[in-house]
Amino acid sequence: MRLRTRLTERFDIEHPIISAPLGMIAGGRLAAAVSNAGGLGLIGGGYGDGGWLEREFSAAGNAKIGCGFITWSLAQRRGLLDQVLARRPAAVMLSFGPVADFAAQIRQSGVPVICQVQSMAHARVAVGAGAEVIVAQGGEAGGHSGSRSTFTLVSEVADYLAKTAPDTLLVAAGGVADGRALAAALMLGADGVLIGSRLVASSEALTPHGFHDAIIAADGDATVKTSVIDLVRNYHWPDEFSGRALRNGFVTRWQGDENALTEPSINASENQRYWEAFTSGDADNAGVFMGEAVGLIHDVRPAADIIEQMVAQAHGRLSHAGQFALPG
Amino acid sequence: MRLRTRLTERFDIEHPIISAPLGMIAGGRLAAAVSNAGGLGLIGGGYGDGGWLEREFSAAGNAKIGCGFITWSLAQRRGLLDQVLARRPAAVMLSFGPVADFAAQIRQSGVPVICQVQSMAHARVAVGAGAEVIVAQGGEAGGHSGSRSTFTLVSEVADYLAKTAPDTLLVAAGGVADGRALAAALMLGADGVLIGSRLVASSEALTPHGFHDAIIAADGDATVKTSVIDLVRNYHWPDEFSGRALRNGFVTRWQGDENALTEPSINASENQRYWEAFTSGDADNAGVFMGEAVGLIHDVRPAADIIEQMVAQAHGRLSHAGQFALPG
Repeated sequence: MRLRTRLTERFDIEHPIISAPLGMIAGGRLAAAVSNAGGLGLIGGGYGDGGWLEREFSAAGNAKIGCGFITWSLAQRRGLLDQVLARRPAAVMLSFGPVADFAAQIRQSGVPVICQVQSMAHARVAVGAGAEVIVAQGGEAGGHSGSRSTFTLVSEVADYLAKTAPDTLLVAAGGVADGRALAAALMLGADGVLIGSRLVASSEALTPHGFHDAIIAADGDATVKTSVIDLVRNYHWPDEFSGRALRNGFVTRWQGDENALTEPSINASENQRYWEAFTSGDADNAGVFMGEAVGLIHDVRPAADIIEQMVAQAHGRLSHAGQFALPG
Repeated sequence: MRLRTRLTERFDIEHPIISAPLGMIAGGRLAAAVSNAGGLGLIGGGYGDGGWLEREFSAAGNAKIGCGFITWSLAQRRGLLDQVLARRPAAVMLSFGPVADFAAQIRQSGVPVICQVQSMAHARVAVGAGAEVIVAQGGEAGGHSGSRSTFTLVSEVADYLAKTAPDTLLVAAGGVADGRALAAALMLGADGVLIGSRLVASSEALTPHGFHDAIIAADGDATVKTSVIDLVRNYHWPDEFSGRALRNGFVTRWQGDENALTEPSINASENQRYWEAFTSGDADNAGVFMGEAVGLIHDVRPAADIIEQMVAQAHGRLSHAGQFALPG
């Protein structure tokens, strides 16, 4: 089964699916699995660890993959972009911060620029920066996002692109975990989707294995937008973004008590405790970034299976969509 | 152009579109216009004014319409339900509070029960209460809603209904303002949509005319979830719900200063000022409930035109959806 959209044609891929460059989770093995399955896999540049990036690019082997950056963080370690561009990535994705300078450098290297946006204000900036692809990300997404929702943001960006930059492609992100959402995104005017949470629950993700059961058990009501996971890690995110994660013991303990978590003495011990929990896969005491789509995730499987099933389901829905439309 | 879904067949309507029972905005003229255009129009029961309800049911004439209630408010004025049931409505919709008792009474009257839900927890209660239709409402909606988003909630409720109550119909609400969203909702597994904000900008809505320009000018970034409009009006909403409205002068002034607004001396004067602004159509100093879909609304038109255009656009998208699916 295959789907054809402007995204598959422009990037010469089989399926209109990009994997989210999840920090610490989307390594080379996942990105390669997604690309080898016919999508476009992206390594997560995260908060900037050059050694990690080298290792994960190598782990991807010869697969045609790209990389994504947290833009405000990249601004503090600009050398990482040079390092990644030297790898001739299939694309570089920028999100969460000023993009103009980076976009120019990436384009000058002949690499396609993907800009993820969380609002119409961001979309206008991304078009101005010459993005080849705009990812419209709703706040139902796992991990960091803004406050707009996928359902309205995708259509509104589509209208804006139609008027101002009709050759710019549009990808929907946030809440996309199955073929129904992929089909819906195409109806809204997207050329494809970007998926994160569903791939956190893939065999190839660097997800601590202890998180798996919590992810499978959760329904979509079980997530919350929070800043406490950033605060304990001392990651200084701009106020307009927060992270969606499982409402677990850690989040419940600190949500509403954010100031305490920034006090140096408390932070020092909590930071250590946090990373120990993360490393050991303690899903109740570390941050488990997941989107609302967690309620649609019932197993951990190879990325290729996940993509194949998404495409088959979307193919079925789209092929039969005409049944709703009476003739005449 | 017509669409056919389980919703059109069960309710014997032409289009799978229900109008939201917007308090103070959705009167008999709007509900009748929606029903006469082939959808199912609902009067907004609001906070309970028996005289208003009588007048608006009369204004609907012989059109086959229903009515919706804010359930926690209805619980304080139960007689309103008897009053509405005596009108033999086409359906009664319940949202925002405990539904079991009311649902039983409505069903005993032979009237279909529509339950709007904002979470999986609500969906389970609604199925238990015997709802014939479940409206899964995302937080991108205008006016009151919960924190889940349309894109994920609809699919997750669809899965739940398939397992536990396959004859229960599913309607998507929140962010639906055009035919793209209607087509997308059907792909996600809904049998139809409920539209609010788009009809606030209809000729028949009881929207203060002074709001029109503000609605047309706003993009989808211009709304915010807030409780200040409830606080100034002394409406005691449960904490899990808040209202999405334009981020105008009134909202900006009080957002973050909610406690002040509940001080009796301040509230007394602000309440008076608020209602004067609302009545005079002052879109900067009254609450203008609108969803994120406001960015997709560019004119004020008769409800019949709005519905006809939605259906035509959805019909086009659905008829051509197969183009994305390659054969084989």
